[in-house]
Amino acid sequence: MTYDAEATRQRIFDAATAEFARHGLAGARIDRIATAAKANKQAIYLYFGGKEKLFGLVVRAKVDEICHVVSLDPRSLPEAVGQLFDWYHEHPDLIRLLLWEALEVNGGQVEGEQERGDSYRDHVNGLMAAGMPDKEEAQDWLFTILGLVAWNFSVPQVRRLILDEPDPERAVARRRAVVMDLARILAEQAATRMND
Amino acid sequence: MTYDAEATRQRIFDAATAEFARHGLAGARIDRIATAAKANKQAIYLYFGGKEKLFGLVVRAKVDEICHVVSLDPRSLPEAVGQLFDWYHEHPDLIRLLLWEALEVNGGQVEGEQERGDSYRDHVNGLMAAGMPDKEEAQDWLFTILGLVAWNFSVPQVRRLILDEPDPERAVARRRAVVMDLARILAEQAATRMND
Repeated sequence: MTYDAEATRQRIFDAATAEFARHGLAGARIDRIATAAKANKQAIYLYFGGKEKLFGLVVRAKVDEICHVVSLDPRSLPEAVGQLFDWYHEHPDLIRLLLWEALEVNGGQVEGEQERGDSYRDHVNGLMAAGMPDKEEAQDWLFTILGLVAWNFSVPQVRRLILDEPDPERAVARRRAVVMDLARILAEQAATRMND
Repeated sequence: MTYDAEATRQRIFDAATAEFARHGLAGARIDRIATAAKANKQAIYLYFGGKEKLFGLVVRAKVDEICHVVSLDPRSLPEAVGQLFDWYHEHPDLIRLLLWEALEVNGGQVEGEQERGDSYRDHVNGLMAAGMPDKEEAQDWLFTILGLVAWNFSVPQVRRLILDEPDPERAVARRRAVVMDLARILAEQAATRMND
C-alpha cells in the first residue's frame, strides 16, 4: 500500500472508531466517517468492505491494544489492575465499543472470533505458566478481573446514582480505591492456591 | 383510568420494554410498539408523552422491580447474590436496558433521576442499619456487588471468548459458581469491619 493509501486507511479507521464508539453499529453513518476522514465512501468499502466488517475490525483493534498493555498475573495483580483501570478511564471508547457489540451483535460470532479467542487463550496460558493450576480457573479469573475494572465504566449513570456523586472524576477516584482493595484480596486468595 | 385504558397502557408498556431492550432508544420505533401493543400511536403519546419519556419509564420500572426483590445485606450476602444472579439471567431485558441507557443517555440525567437515587439511598440506609459503619463504604459495596453479578450478562461475547465456552448455559453455570465464591469472600471481609 502506498504512503497515501496507508494514511487514508488510518484516517478512516480513526474516524470509524470515534463514530462507532459514539453511535454504535446501527447508528453509525458511513457518510459521517467519510467526511471526518476526508475520504470518500468508495475508499471505505474498498479498504474495509462495509460497515459491519469495519465495526468488527475497530472493536478487535481496540481489544488488541489493551491486551498488549496489561498482563493479569496474580503475583502482581494490584499493579496490573491499577494500570487496567487507568487505561479504561483514559480510553472511554473501549468499553463503549464492547457494549455496543454486546447489544447489537447479540450473541452471534464477532469479526475475528478465532483471533480474539486466541488472544485470550494466550493470556490464559500465561496465567497457567505463572502458577494457576487449572485452565478454567484461569479463564474465570481473567473474566472476573476484567469485570471488576470495566464495570466502573460500563454504567456511569448507575455509578452516579448509587454513589450519590455527581462529579465523575470523584466517583472514578472512589472506585479506583475500592477496586485496588479488592485486587489485593483476590491476589491473596489466588496465592493460597498457586503451585509455585 | 378505565379498565380498558389501563389494559392498553399495560400492553404498550410491555411492548415498549421488549422493543427498547432489543433496539435501544434511537433504534426503537413507536410504530412497532403500537403494532405489538395493538394500540395506536396517539395513545402512546397520550399516556407516555413520547419515546424518550417512555424509555426512561421502562428502565425505571425494571430497575424498581429488581430493587424490590433483593437486599444485599452483608450478613446474608451469598444467598442474595445467588438470587440477584438468577434474576439477571432470567430477565435479560434488565441489563440490556441499563446498557442502552449508559450508551445513549451518555452521562446525562435519567428519567426519574431523583426517585431512582432515592431507591438506592434506601438500600444504602438499609446496609448501614445492618451494621456497615460508613455511608460511602455502603454505596461502594452496593455498586461492586451489582457489578460482580451484572458483568456476567453485560458482555456475553467476551464471556464466550474468554471462557472458551460456546454453550451460554454452561458459561452461566460456571460464572454462578465463581460469583458465589466471591460473595462468600466479600461477606467475610465485610463481617470483620461491621460494628454489630
